[in-house]
Amino acid sequence: MALNAIVIGSTGLVGQRLVYYLSNHPWFRLIGVTASDDKVGKRYEEVVRWSLEEPMPSTVKDMKIMKMDVNEIVAQKPDIVFTALPTSVSAKVDQELAKKGMIVVSHASNNRLDPDVPLLNPEVNADHVEVAKLQESRWSGKIFKVANCASTILTLALKPIYDDFGISRVFVSTMQALSGAGLNGVAGMAILDNIIPYIEDEEEKIETESLKMLGMVSNNGILLNDKFTVSATVHRVNVLEGHLEAVFLKTEKDAEVEDIKESLREFRNNKIRGMGLPMQPEAPVVVREEKDRPQPRLDRMEGKGMSVVVGRIRKDKEGWIKFNVLGHNTIRGAAGNGILIAELLYKMKII
Amino acid sequence: MALNAIVIGSTGLVGQRLVYYLSNHPWFRLIGVTASDDKVGKRYEEVVRWSLEEPMPSTVKDMKIMKMDVNEIVAQKPDIVFTALPTSVSAKVDQELAKKGMIVVSHASNNRLDPDVPLLNPEVNADHVEVAKLQESRWSGKIFKVANCASTILTLALKPIYDDFGISRVFVSTMQALSGAGLNGVAGMAILDNIIPYIEDEEEKIETESLKMLGMVSNNGILLNDKFTVSATVHRVNVLEGHLEAVFLKTEKDAEVEDIKESLREFRNNKIRGMGLPMQPEAPVVVREEKDRPQPRLDRMEGKGMSVVVGRIRKDKEGWIKFNVLGHNTIRGAAGNGILIAELLYKMKII
Amino acid sequence: MALNAIVIGSTGLVGQRLVYYLSNHPWFRLIGVTASDDKVGKRYEEVVRWSLEEPMPSTVKDMKIMKMDVNEIVAQKPDIVFTALPTSVSAKVDQELAKKGMIVVSHASNNRLDPDVPLLNPEVNADHVEVAKLQESRWSGKIFKVANCASTILTLALKPIYDDFGISRVFVSTMQALSGAGLNGVAGMAILDNIIPYIEDEEEKIETESLKMLGMVSNNGILLNDKFTVSATVHRVNVLEGHLEAVFLKTEKDAEVEDIKESLREFRNNKIRGMGLPMQPEAPVVVREEKDRPQPRLDRMEGKGMSVVVGRIRKDKEGWIKFNVLGHNTIRGAAGNGILIAELLYKMKII
Amino acid sequence: MALNAIVIGSTGLVGQRLVYYLSNHPWFRLIGVTASDDKVGKRYEEVVRWSLEEPMPSTVKDMKIMKMDVNEIVAQKPDIVFTALPTSVSAKVDQELAKKGMIVVSHASNNRLDPDVPLLNPEVNADHVEVAKLQESRWSGKIFKVANCASTILTLALKPIYDDFGISRVFVSTMQALSGAGLNGVAGMAILDNIIPYIEDEEEKIETESLKMLGMVSNNGILLNDKFTVSATVHRVNVLEGHLEAVFLKTEKDAEVEDIKESLREFRNNKIRGMGLPMQPEAPVVVREEKDRPQPRLDRMEGKGMSVVVGRIRKDKEGWIKFNVLGHNTIRGAAGNGILIAELLYKMKII
Repeated sequence: MALNAIVIGSTGLVGQRLVYYLSNHPWFRLIGVTASDDKVGKRYEEVVRWSLEEPMPSTVKDMKIMKMDVNEIVAQKPDIVFTALPTSVSAKVDQELAKKGMIVVSHASNNRLDPDVPLLNPEVNADHVEVAKLQESRWSGKIFKVANCASTILTLALKPIYDDFGISRVFVSTMQALSGAGLNGVAGMAILDNIIPYIEDEEEKIETESLKMLGMVSNNGILLNDKFTVSATVHRVNVLEGHLEAVFLKTEKDAEVEDIKESLREFRNNKIRGMGLPMQPEAPVVVREEKDRPQPRLDRMEGKGMSVVVGRIRKDKEGWIKFNVLGHNTIRGAAGNGILIAELLYKMKII
Repeated sequence: MALNAIVIGSTGLVGQRLVYYLSNHPWFRLIGVTASDDKVGKRYEEVVRWSLEEPMPSTVKDMKIMKMDVNEIVAQKPDIVFTALPTSVSAKVDQELAKKGMIVVSHASNNRLDPDVPLLNPEVNADHVEVAKLQESRWSGKIFKVANCASTILTLALKPIYDDFGISRVFVSTMQALSGAGLNGVAGMAILDNIIPYIEDEEEKIETESLKMLGMVSNNGILLNDKFTVSATVHRVNVLEGHLEAVFLKTEKDAEVEDIKESLREFRNNKIRGMGLPMQPEAPVVVREEKDRPQPRLDRMEGKGMSVVVGRIRKDKEGWIKFNVLGHNTIRGAAGNGILIAELLYKMKII
Repeated sequence: MALNAIVIGSTGLVGQRLVYYLSNHPWFRLIGVTASDDKVGKRYEEVVRWSLEEPMPSTVKDMKIMKMDVNEIVAQKPDIVFTALPTSVSAKVDQELAKKGMIVVSHASNNRLDPDVPLLNPEVNADHVEVAKLQESRWSGKIFKVANCASTILTLALKPIYDDFGISRVFVSTMQALSGAGLNGVAGMAILDNIIPYIEDEEEKIETESLKMLGMVSNNGILLNDKFTVSATVHRVNVLEGHLEAVFLKTEKDAEVEDIKESLREFRNNKIRGMGLPMQPEAPVVVREEKDRPQPRLDRMEGKGMSVVVGRIRKDKEGWIKFNVLGHNTIRGAAGNGILIAELLYKMKII
Repeated sequence: MALNAIVIGSTGLVGQRLVYYLSNHPWFRLIGVTASDDKVGKRYEEVVRWSLEEPMPSTVKDMKIMKMDVNEIVAQKPDIVFTALPTSVSAKVDQELAKKGMIVVSHASNNRLDPDVPLLNPEVNADHVEVAKLQESRWSGKIFKVANCASTILTLALKPIYDDFGISRVFVSTMQALSGAGLNGVAGMAILDNIIPYIEDEEEKIETESLKMLGMVSNNGILLNDKFTVSATVHRVNVLEGHLEAVFLKTEKDAEVEDIKESLREFRNNKIRGMGLPMQPEAPVVVREEKDRPQPRLDRMEGKGMSVVVGRIRKDKEGWIKFNVLGHNTIRGAAGNGILIAELLYKMKII
């Protein structure tokens, strides 16, 4: 059982993590990588500015960079294609691949709100996979999307509370790591001794994608959750990895702090529980009791970067629940989630 | 007209700023400084680890450190005494000075919620000064408090909105600078590549002191504003100076974004407007239109550090107003505000 | 007396400082600014990402961006043209301007080692101005170069020692600020919790430009100083402004630590001393006695950023002198030096 | 084979690493930990502020803190005692333990220059172990010292060059991580956007301890190497872990850059090579060819933190060799080296 995988856009930060995971994966085999045109034909090691602390897998070093040509990619007969492209080009590439029958796991923000495109966060909404069959009217393949990083992290903390107590309103203020903007996304001079209270389109993504991940399956695809709204304000901070989010929320049913803790601690998704997905963490949500956690540097690698960590759960004078949630944005919020989604698709016999 | 001033606790970060302002002030003359016992009798220059970018005033360099003895302080006949002490000792010192008839402007958190002790933010609540007369039953002097830094900054942005539209609820998530914890308050190893989502007692201070500054004068002293509550979550970030706060609030009356901007821009306190207080900024609130401001490093010195800067004012789907407010925590939020309060007291003939 | 000045490349970090100084200068008047082609015709305020802590001068806000066309620039009849361009284009622009008779003060690294082009650091080598007359064989105008920032700073500390005791060898290890690479030169992710032990061509520049600034005037132009060599190793560190350099040097004549201190403290350049150049600091070299100075954040603004600060002067077991020297790289090491050079040229009647 | 070990001073940064290594060690068993008096009798988990990214070993969590009483420690009959104490108390404790017959591996700077006390860096000077027998005149036990971190890292790079080509002079400029000063050693406000060009006594340590590690065994103990001197200048930088050092050195015999690289790459210590010490890295010195390496964040974990990384090896105009060497200061430079020394002592039948 070796599923052949290709990574489109393999030299960026998310692409590197995909390459790393696929090169060490029990089920997948990395058979091709693409990068920008000027790198085609060169060795991977030669063109990448490797930025992970983990060493570059030896098997990928000599891999020749493929042209990002849909026909060439299809000719390799991959079982799955991961795309980690700038949004501006991702829509076209994803759809052309789907038209050629490919199964695509895509990381950019295009098509994320299409009702027939599952926006996946497996512990939260593995059941959304099924709406992908509605894509048949558009193309013979299928596109599955990885959601925005801050939304994926937030939704993992919201899901158990939503299931157990209902939610009527969410405010969230994020403090997001540099890696979310890519290797060169934020200049050192811009962020030293500073915070930037703006990330393009990020608030809109959090406010909609979270509701889609918590949405319902219908005959017409996923319906955004309409029980509550999310109101976000976002900040870029001088941290390498790990988005920290301050959440204020109102539950529908009364819930004490201890109830919330238990709900978060007990949270598992029964649908995927017994599947044995290699990327799945033991606990998707880890609750800490210390008064000063979670902290990005100390907690981002919880569950090998696939768990989110919730702390400082408390209740304010008007009964709102407050907490902090932290997640590793390029693992749980991007490449790790992409791999987990692919594993899920395999177990659900989509690939 | 030279009003004699003494600074108790002159070598900490706030103490240094007080020394700086008083050494260059048109109305005040610094006649004495105290520090911990082991420094008594030494020259100021010798014992202070000067940490401001502005040079140490030459007039203070040779000043001998006084003993922190109330009788000795009183013997100097100061017109005003500024205390910048740890909370644990401040209560005792402030009250002993008041018992000896001194006018005290105090920076620590003791006594801030006493109804007869004005918690001042001059543009917001200069009228609170009058309740200090109720202290007569306790001592012959008077204590005036500088509020918590994050609260002072927040309240400057809330006040005009409260006056023009009413407020029914506030959520605030702060990102606070290292200087708020003093020169050695946060270890470099603890904060590099990190955020600490906790500052002792800070949330409680924001949630109560803001309401006191926006409270009403009564015969029994200041009544906390009870029209709304503030719910806070706080974070320490790797920034030198400048607290950035993300605010979500609900107004009582409908207000469009442009109305809020105008309200903030037009805000002046008529009571203190014509007083010519040297420390008073032209505009207490500066509104910026750029999508990515305010930023701590770029905006903290607005109005010489005495203005707060508000940006990203917008309205969410349910009609809540969102914005960021930034203020210089050791100037507007501490020493600068202390000096402004003293100036106000002089013009109101308290000193 | 208003000398008309144009800044070519006015939106980068050095360009912004030039604009700032020229807009507030007693002798110069800024009459034009250029930027990249896509910005031509727009208002300066509209196209610049202003990055200085000082506010943008109001007089420049509405200035229209000129096309970077030599004929158009010459048509404005500037008395002096400052160029702050990438090296790749600077050579062509500087020389075309010179061919049209312009006096050019140029910041990029082109032509810096040409014997007939003065590489100026006024307190060190104002007498080098005269070799510019040799340029007459090449063009009717004149080019004067601002040296590499780290070299300018180093040379200010070497000059008095060289004059008083001779130097037979210099080793220098630099720790250079982010601003030296321009606004976007170093990614936040690359430098957080890190040091990069490499800056392209920087070591070569330090090793040659320092010797040219300490070189001699001859009939054929400046001869590089050949009495000693400089051996450099350079590092980029996570500091905004201020290059710190660790120097090990061997003097020719014996010198005690106190002799070195006195030499540095007494250092003035008699040639420019009485000229009253507005940008000239009272002391080009400031010596500090504290055991832990100079520090970039605390000392970079010494002399409004135009003085270098030397500290930790000591002697090792083999009689080598060791010290740290710090200078503000975009002021003393770039724009401030450019303005000082222009002031010198005016007083020497070159413009 | 389980050797019983006690860690004296187990809650500091070095103490935590010792605890971590000993709890997961094939040869050693951690049987006791001490901390300051106020913590005695409490559980380790309760009193430590755990600061490693690796999780706290479960076996140590419930361990009761022992009193730091020499008799009590001896009563536990440890095979080896590791001390990680402030220098001010370490001398007394180490010697009292030695008087009771204990084998002590000590991390503080006391006694490091005693001729009869081996200052160990196993790949460099395993043969120095033997001089410990001279301690018999002082006490029945034996003290072995871990050297200063910057010296240990430097010496690993010097040793192969010294052996192959001789060295006649070394200059070194260090950029040292925060962790070298302990958990609270450097305030966040002191180091953000800054460098501190001073670390107490550090230069003296580098200048002497390096020469002792490269010294010779004699009948009277270790003689400091007198073939050359080391001249150091040190800086504290805003980096978590990893000391980066810029080295300039003169070899006795001519050596080309490629010769130096080969010497460093080939370096192994034959004496310890076949011993199978678990902590020993495959290569004590790793040479990198990229022009911008080593970098602290990317390279400090080379060889699990036990290898040093050398890069940018080049030769200047006068034939001096220049390079950068990087090592993990709390692993290779402290706790990891302490464990490696203990392993060596076991294999040499000292314990």
